[in-house]
Amino acid sequence: MKVGIVGLGLIGGSLGLDLLASESNDHYVWGISRSPETCKQAIAIASVNIASPSIDDIPAQVLEQTDIVIICTPIAAILPTIAALVPKLPAQIIITDVGSVKGLIVEPALEICQKYHQRFVGSHPMAGTAFQGIAAAELNLFRDRPCVITSSDDIEAVAKVRSLWESVGMRIYECCPEEHDRAVAMISHAPVMISASLIAACQKQEDQKILQIAQNLASSGFRDTSRVGGGNPELGRLMAEYNREAVLRSLQEYQLSLQVIIDLIENKQWQELELFLADTQRDRQFYVQ
Amino acid sequence: MKVGIVGLGLIGGSLGLDLLASESNDHYVWGISRSPETCKQAIAIASVNIASPSIDDIPAQVLEQTDIVIICTPIAAILPTIAALVPKLPAQIIITDVGSVKGLIVEPALEICQKYHQRFVGSHPMAGTAFQGIAAAELNLFRDRPCVITSSDDIEAVAKVRSLWESVGMRIYECCPEEHDRAVAMISHAPVMISASLIAACQKQEDQKILQIAQNLASSGFRDTSRVGGGNPELGRLMAEYNREAVLRSLQEYQLSLQVIIDLIENKQWQELELFLADTQRDRQFYVQ
Repeated sequence: MKVGIVGLGLIGGSLGLDLLASESNDHYVWGISRSPETCKQAIAIASVNIASPSIDDIPAQVLEQTDIVIICTPIAAILPTIAALVPKLPAQIIITDVGSVKGLIVEPALEICQKYHQRFVGSHPMAGTAFQGIAAAELNLFRDRPCVITSSDDIEAVAKVRSLWESVGMRIYECCPEEHDRAVAMISHAPVMISASLIAACQKQEDQKILQIAQNLASSGFRDTSRVGGGNPELGRLMAEYNREAVLRSLQEYQLSLQVIIDLIENKQWQELELFLADTQRDRQFYVQ
Repeated sequence: MKVGIVGLGLIGGSLGLDLLASESNDHYVWGISRSPETCKQAIAIASVNIASPSIDDIPAQVLEQTDIVIICTPIAAILPTIAALVPKLPAQIIITDVGSVKGLIVEPALEICQKYHQRFVGSHPMAGTAFQGIAAAELNLFRDRPCVITSSDDIEAVAKVRSLWESVGMRIYECCPEEHDRAVAMISHAPVMISASLIAACQKQEDQKILQIAQNLASSGFRDTSRVGGGNPELGRLMAEYNREAVLRSLQEYQLSLQVIIDLIENKQWQELELFLADTQRDRQFYVQ
């Protein structure tokens, strides 16, 4: 496959590494990054064959033969990047993205692409590390991780995007943008807010001795429950901003569940509390293999 | 030191292992467990020198020289065990426990002990694994872990209990039972309820396709945030039951913090949300070294 990767950070850079390291050895990858330095690094680590800050530098012959272009920019840049890019691409190229929300991306992206006779299918490869940038790119980042592809009537485009992510080892799930956004709100975006609220509540403790002891005693339980709430604030904000409706809906569902547990404790319904916790113990297994 | 351990499970068994393996090699440990089989196992793995289901089988001469007795039973059994034991111990023995709440334990335990001229200081060694029983006992379980000792006028008893836990490598913090209970409610007990509510809220999803996708996409963020909510239901119930007031207080504080974050999202105050998350990112470091 001939592949274009626009945005050479952790995700784009790692994707290129896997493609060029593949045993079949029949991939060609061109890359775009705003930073000339990043382009150089991407070439140096064999994440791309060629790279440039401008699509004008990618040979027309290479563009002609390109099968897929993957937009790997931060979420706010996805639509502007597509809009800037598509007029310069030969028609009928398949474009996909890697954004962690799909509702606000897929529909407008499709409109832009169709205007220029390009094709679009949304992707969300769920892989990452705590690090960013081309320097953090690593082989096998995607292996055995889930990837959502948004449903489309363009069966051929879906098949091509699917085979791209399968080729780097991902498990593929297909659904519509709204289903995706509600699912990730539940298991990824709302947990960030739930976890951050725990840290904020602890810090509100006014008794300094208790606060000090709490900080000293906090162990693996607190570490795990608070982890995603202590993550990158910009990412957390973007999740809420781009997936606002589904995140709010999940948090409201969450408030109801929390109130059930509080009522059980308030009313000393210990047997019922134990049953509630036995259910969550059992049900967690459906999410965590 | 001559030490008695009552309850030879993970905590009691591991404590004995460390004491008998210590380089100074000057400890003698006797043990009590309801189960004769557990007594045999404890002796076999060198967690105790002698053990029996009944204190009547421990030689009077050994009891005479005992410095500390540590009650390592489940929390509900601590007070009944102390009540049954103290009349059979020589006077002035120092007794401590390992219960994860202190308010409901320390005051009544002290009363029982004083009646029989024994001395009591509460402990909460914060160590454990996912496993239970003498078969799960391991060396160095307590190393570098925090241990709370409840304040007391009996300076000598406090010093002795402190030196016991220090000898197995623990960091000691001293405070009153209420301070302990409020601190652990915040960082240990409330997180169980917060985490369990997340699992429960996800499972309430009625759209089966979304539920299925959520379960397939759940990754490390969900795994960590839901971990303690998927733990032993009986332990979770006991935390709430024995530390009810402080747990409710923490959960109510938590509800307020959560509502702040929901309001920010509801009102699209993205800058403020990012600041909130920047604070929790910074503050988490005070709990997680």
